[in-house]
Amino acid sequence: MNKLKKSRLGIAFGLAAILLFTGATKVQAAEKIVHDAEYYILEAQNGEAWAKEDKALDKKLAELRKKYGQPPNIIHIMWDDTSFGDVGIPAISKIRGFETPNINRMAEEGILFTRMYTEPGCTPSRAAVATGRYAIRSGMYRIGFPVEYSGIRKEEVTIAEVMSKAGYATAFYGKWHLGDIEEAYPHNQGYDETLFSVYNQVMSLFNEIGEGANAVMGLKEEMLIPDPYKLDNSFVPKGYVMTIEGKKGQLGQEWGGTTHDDYLKAEAEFKKRTIEFIRKNAKAGKPFYVANWPLLTSFMPNPKKMTVSRGLYTDTMQHNVDAFIGQIMDELKKLGIAENTLLIVMADNGPMVHNPPPGLGMTETIFRGGKGDFLEGGVRVPAFAWWPGVIEPEQIVGDIIHETDLYTTFAKLGSAIQHIPTDRIVDGVDQTALLFSGDTHGRRDYVFIYAGPTLAASVKGNWKRHWISGDPTEGSGIGAAYYYLLHDTREKFPMLVNALPQNEAFARMRKRHELWKEKYPDSTRAHGPAFTGLSNARPETTALSKPSVEMNKLPFDPLEFINHELPWETDVDPDIGQ
Amino acid sequence: MNKLKKSRLGIAFGLAAILLFTGATKVQAAEKIVHDAEYYILEAQNGEAWAKEDKALDKKLAELRKKYGQPPNIIHIMWDDTSFGDVGIPAISKIRGFETPNINRMAEEGILFTRMYTEPGCTPSRAAVATGRYAIRSGMYRIGFPVEYSGIRKEEVTIAEVMSKAGYATAFYGKWHLGDIEEAYPHNQGYDETLFSVYNQVMSLFNEIGEGANAVMGLKEEMLIPDPYKLDNSFVPKGYVMTIEGKKGQLGQEWGGTTHDDYLKAEAEFKKRTIEFIRKNAKAGKPFYVANWPLLTSFMPNPKKMTVSRGLYTDTMQHNVDAFIGQIMDELKKLGIAENTLLIVMADNGPMVHNPPPGLGMTETIFRGGKGDFLEGGVRVPAFAWWPGVIEPEQIVGDIIHETDLYTTFAKLGSAIQHIPTDRIVDGVDQTALLFSGDTHGRRDYVFIYAGPTLAASVKGNWKRHWISGDPTEGSGIGAAYYYLLHDTREKFPMLVNALPQNEAFARMRKRHELWKEKYPDSTRAHGPAFTGLSNARPETTALSKPSVEMNKLPFDPLEFINHELPWETDVDPDIGQ
Repeated sequence: MNKLKKSRLGIAFGLAAILLFTGATKVQAAEKIVHDAEYYILEAQNGEAWAKEDKALDKKLAELRKKYGQPPNIIHIMWDDTSFGDVGIPAISKIRGFETPNINRMAEEGILFTRMYTEPGCTPSRAAVATGRYAIRSGMYRIGFPVEYSGIRKEEVTIAEVMSKAGYATAFYGKWHLGDIEEAYPHNQGYDETLFSVYNQVMSLFNEIGEGANAVMGLKEEMLIPDPYKLDNSFVPKGYVMTIEGKKGQLGQEWGGTTHDDYLKAEAEFKKRTIEFIRKNAKAGKPFYVANWPLLTSFMPNPKKMTVSRGLYTDTMQHNVDAFIGQIMDELKKLGIAENTLLIVMADNGPMVHNPPPGLGMTETIFRGGKGDFLEGGVRVPAFAWWPGVIEPEQIVGDIIHETDLYTTFAKLGSAIQHIPTDRIVDGVDQTALLFSGDTHGRRDYVFIYAGPTLAASVKGNWKRHWISGDPTEGSGIGAAYYYLLHDTREKFPMLVNALPQNEAFARMRKRHELWKEKYPDSTRAHGPAFTGLSNARPETTALSKPSVEMNKLPFDPLEFINHELPWETDVDPDIGQ
Repeated sequence: MNKLKKSRLGIAFGLAAILLFTGATKVQAAEKIVHDAEYYILEAQNGEAWAKEDKALDKKLAELRKKYGQPPNIIHIMWDDTSFGDVGIPAISKIRGFETPNINRMAEEGILFTRMYTEPGCTPSRAAVATGRYAIRSGMYRIGFPVEYSGIRKEEVTIAEVMSKAGYATAFYGKWHLGDIEEAYPHNQGYDETLFSVYNQVMSLFNEIGEGANAVMGLKEEMLIPDPYKLDNSFVPKGYVMTIEGKKGQLGQEWGGTTHDDYLKAEAEFKKRTIEFIRKNAKAGKPFYVANWPLLTSFMPNPKKMTVSRGLYTDTMQHNVDAFIGQIMDELKKLGIAENTLLIVMADNGPMVHNPPPGLGMTETIFRGGKGDFLEGGVRVPAFAWWPGVIEPEQIVGDIIHETDLYTTFAKLGSAIQHIPTDRIVDGVDQTALLFSGDTHGRRDYVFIYAGPTLAASVKGNWKRHWISGDPTEGSGIGAAYYYLLHDTREKFPMLVNALPQNEAFARMRKRHELWKEKYPDSTRAHGPAFTGLSNARPETTALSKPSVEMNKLPFDPLEFINHELPWETDVDPDIGQ
């Protein structure tokens, strides 16, 4: 069996090597960005047309720069857990009972993407945008909860580092969720100014009021009746930091406390500072890149409903996120910089349809699945681009775009391409042509979708290949799980006979992707003590970086685990579907 | 058990009687249309406002009539099996890989309904529109296949009869599917001119080419290898009529034969005659009502794909149905009658997602379920209204409207309300205000959804109550299956505690509906010999009206069954969920 496998790999490698030859040589020769293997298959066929298109785009960008005296500003708003269709499509808003007039306006005046792909969860999605790389490559594929003792590695080169080198002012406000260790803080990852929540929305319940309101299990041990059988007091760590404020090159500070009130204050402050940052740089005439990744919603039940739909999500989407987007658009116009600013708004992944808090109001709107799933419902999100005068109005774009593409495209717009590292794979493809020229001008027809560390599915054009499945009747093991997305938007009817032309092609595509990793291997997340690097650390948080059991009573080092990768919460046998 | 039931019924009756008192008296006093019980609950609360609104509407209608010298023309196009969202919403068109530019134009220039409800299958849906009554009331709740020996009863008063009495020219072209007996033919049901297919799309396979192309089971017995165990040669009748042509008061004629070519020719002829009928009456200055219910698509595989989506359905929707709608709109403008013509286009029920022919290309787009299901996916369809100068452009309407409402609304527009029978329940509510004044001007907040003869679900506002379920964990029997449609568009999460305020209210609503039937009972479909009333009947079709087994060899009358109601194909224990 092992022998057979080896020999099959050998054949595959030989074949892939032939197919890769041209692309690989090019990369080594020119010190260009190293893309995923599949990109070179496309470049080999479209490279000439793209080069010609790029010349025209470079000219346009130069003209814009001349006109405004600086490269364009970039604002990236990425909120949580939204079904494609829920925002920006008025007919669906009616069905869902809430409205997003400002996102609708973005769609009317700009681009509505129908195929923006993300990673399937908050942490991996944020890592992908920040690094331009699939989360598997940085090891950031698990969703973090307190206390995780790990985070994004300092060796990763974030979009903030890239843009900073090109002279941009950079800032991060909102839900970072990329680790609770010092090197992972955004101000240690290239952002000039930051105010960020370390974890996610669950923090809104992680306090006394949350306990009372939910009254289900007890999130805080202090509230529980002592368990008479309890032997281990160290299993669940106590204490954490909710929000940190930081400036590049300085120690961070805990901002506010951990009450629900602090949670709500932080949400408001993220917005306030984003607007202030925009104003300040507009005034100074300095190009800026700012990421505002909203906390979206507190998970606390809200007795005062604000939409007909009356969900925590639907209420906050309309009155918090959409309203803020409108505020940004108005502010840009007021400051006179709208025509030199790219605004991208999007969700980070699909809706939380599995085990949501009560009354959340998320649903599968068109696609099957949600957050955590490799189905379209998990990874195909609403996304919009607005740039008056540059992006044509009323565009519905059918090209595939991946969130990592933002990294490369932002760098291109900021004349910062040369600051992208060339010693690793950068999945992000330059999609400037798609922004400037619209539908059918995309440069990607593929996506690899990982479920944690496991390759779960590949998208190529309108076809999708599931590599793993929890359903033993789906036939993944023998290769039957092909889906034609235009007919079968919900990935419910696996094909084999009808997908024959795609069969071997998908196998080659996967093998190329895997063999390319032998040359450019995946990295891992960094591990270490939590919440160091804070100038105002509380004793409880300082205590979190030390073991809660006396070390001399143990026959092993309790901190040793931090040097090892932790598993994905829904671990899959990596051999399935190979 | 029986005793308990009786006493519960008694209490319910008493309660309902009190609640019904006002409405029932009113109806008897004024000889008005008899609506379903629920309507009177709404009228008691909104009647005054409606009366006021009606005065203004009557004035507007009178002005229009003065301007054009005749009441408005009405065109009703109703094709098969389409998911809400699949047509008229460009962002979803991208996802599905086909386009409907003309329906999109209708939405831009008119109304897109987000809550048009139908019956869950072709035959019941057509019966509901034709009679203004739920299909259960006419007994037309089964989907007909050859040979059914039954059809819509002559005592039903169709919209064509109502409009004819008000001086309209009326015509029916397309898929009638309301029976294969003489009294059921549309020209015997009030339509002046007809060319209609007796059954549905399956007929496109019911011939030698269809056999070959599908090559699965053998639809025609003549093609099969004789079964050596076969004892009964009468079980599946042989022969049928595909298309009939008719004129009011005359015998019908079989039009063409039963080949696939005849099927395609009929589709083209339905369109041609519709346009001719419109032209003729426009020229004559005679108000007209014409129903074109397209055959939609042949089920024969089409080797020449016509959309990126490459489905039988998607191809035909774009190149056949949508193109025809565009042709109609252009024709109305060319004839100068667009501003005095109401055009309504819609699907008859949800997509055929259960057991479709290969390559059909239908999917659940937003709602769960499809044709045959009492879920939103089965009964909530795309629907659009266009009437330049009268219906305001770009309206997305969130009011509930039921296909039976078209009956009453068409009658209202044609000054034909007085021809609607008052001796039976007419479910159709006058929705003229919704057409003229738009969103929030609807007069219905409820729908009763039947699965065959069984009440399966009730919709009230944004809540839905499932009364039956195939899933024993859904809790229908004890009353747990409430769904909040704005959060849970896919009806996947039954509620009980969160739906407490709705609990008893739904029970009362159902009981009122049922008690009202004691006064105005359901009718049944008519039964009889098939394909009589044709001037050119072939011997094979004439033979179908006689038993295929020699009668004197039987101890019973083999035709006796035609006097009895046949069961629904997915029969449900009527006691479940009571």
